[in-house]
Amino acid sequence: MCELLGMSANVPTDICFSFTALALRGGRTGPHKDGWGITFYEGKGCRTFKDPLPSHSSPIARLVREYPIKSCAVVSHVRQANRGSVALENTHPFTRELWGRNWTFAHNGQLDDYLTLATGNYQPIGETDSEYAFCWLLQQMHSRYPQPPDDALALFHFIARCADVLRQRGVFNMLLSDGRYVMAYCSTQLHWITRRAPFGKATLVDEDVVIDFQAETTPDDVVSVIATQPLTCDESWQRIAPGTFALFCLGERQA
Amino acid sequence: MCELLGMSANVPTDICFSFTALALRGGRTGPHKDGWGITFYEGKGCRTFKDPLPSHSSPIARLVREYPIKSCAVVSHVRQANRGSVALENTHPFTRELWGRNWTFAHNGQLDDYLTLATGNYQPIGETDSEYAFCWLLQQMHSRYPQPPDDALALFHFIARCADVLRQRGVFNMLLSDGRYVMAYCSTQLHWITRRAPFGKATLVDEDVVIDFQAETTPDDVVSVIATQPLTCDESWQRIAPGTFALFCLGERQA
Repeated sequence: MCELLGMSANVPTDICFSFTALALRGGRTGPHKDGWGITFYEGKGCRTFKDPLPSHSSPIARLVREYPIKSCAVVSHVRQANRGSVALENTHPFTRELWGRNWTFAHNGQLDDYLTLATGNYQPIGETDSEYAFCWLLQQMHSRYPQPPDDALALFHFIARCADVLRQRGVFNMLLSDGRYVMAYCSTQLHWITRRAPFGKATLVDEDVVIDFQAETTPDDVVSVIATQPLTCDESWQRIAPGTFALFCLGERQA
Repeated sequence: MCELLGMSANVPTDICFSFTALALRGGRTGPHKDGWGITFYEGKGCRTFKDPLPSHSSPIARLVREYPIKSCAVVSHVRQANRGSVALENTHPFTRELWGRNWTFAHNGQLDDYLTLATGNYQPIGETDSEYAFCWLLQQMHSRYPQPPDDALALFHFIARCADVLRQRGVFNMLLSDGRYVMAYCSTQLHWITRRAPFGKATLVDEDVVIDFQAETTPDDVVSVIATQPLTCDESWQRIAPGTFALFCLGERQA
């Protein structure tokens, strides 16, 4: 089992608190020792840090925990390898260009028969079922919309129908972002929470760390976090029903 | 003017020494204050660190200088913006998939009339002439070789002919790598050096730093470095003649 973590915010926000929890699961409180990765958007650009090393002992993960990179859209993943060896090219998230934007993808689960999926011009680089599914998804998107679609909601409903197809081949929990939207498709388990004023305090499940969001935010901030399992023990996380998705833009849930 | 830095090695080698020189040029000893980036290959995978901040003051650049990431193929760039604003999506190197491999590109120079270049399915994300040229180049490569070419030397000669076309529109010094090969195309200036046993000492041009390569290497190591200007003042760097290219694989010059 891998852990997914996503964030959507209306002002550039750091993810240090949530990433601390995720990184701990990477080999200390969890079994996800086979690499980790995180992608931060800044406008149309994005930066990815990834490492095939366990996140709890990685110097790069330490940088990410300690250096507050602020972003309105983040996708992160801690991996326990099932398909594909422990190697950089098999480490999520994966980012590819479509319609002149960076699309970033991370997957939790395992797929069967994925080699029969047609990926067209989007060739996998590594060996994972996940990257293969991402390439197929991009090919479906490009084939359905040769030009950038105007109706974002229709696009994400189309993507969800494609995800339904993948889910028939196994477990397919997914985070997908183009830097504006963050989509969470639930196959078995994904949770989300939106934080807004009045902000309170929260305690990490995995470590005795408390954050006072009021000290870290302004009254207008809206920040949504998506995670495989709730990251805090004293907030009300919502479960995304299997076979459905949640779509976020600038912190607010859109669908 | 931007600075390019590339490396090809037969064993995974860190680039801390050379990157120290390049990073200093990013805002302290040089005028290249508008961001920097570096891509390290590990097998078919690669990791990129980039920052629109000046490299001499960037925490991420400090990580790269101090954390010896070892690689057989590296492409790096320090930017002084000419076309395109100072933003992450305009920061080199750029990486895209072709033939199931990561291709990484960095450019020094400036092109005119680049918007007339047809980029096909490879859409630019940022605003730079450089990324535009890269997309055109990928489109040319994919169009000439719909399937991965068997003859690498023929492929790189084809790429050089494309680079000749771009050079007619301005200045086009380029580094390009697929993780196996590192190609350096010279439009106006690029230098290279191959280090092998017996290794000696070398002193950086930009700072009073001396490295004893013998202490850092084994007798079988072969490491080539490509840079806009020679990085050391006591070694014999070779100039690449304008309009020609140098191709490296596992540290050795191939063409």
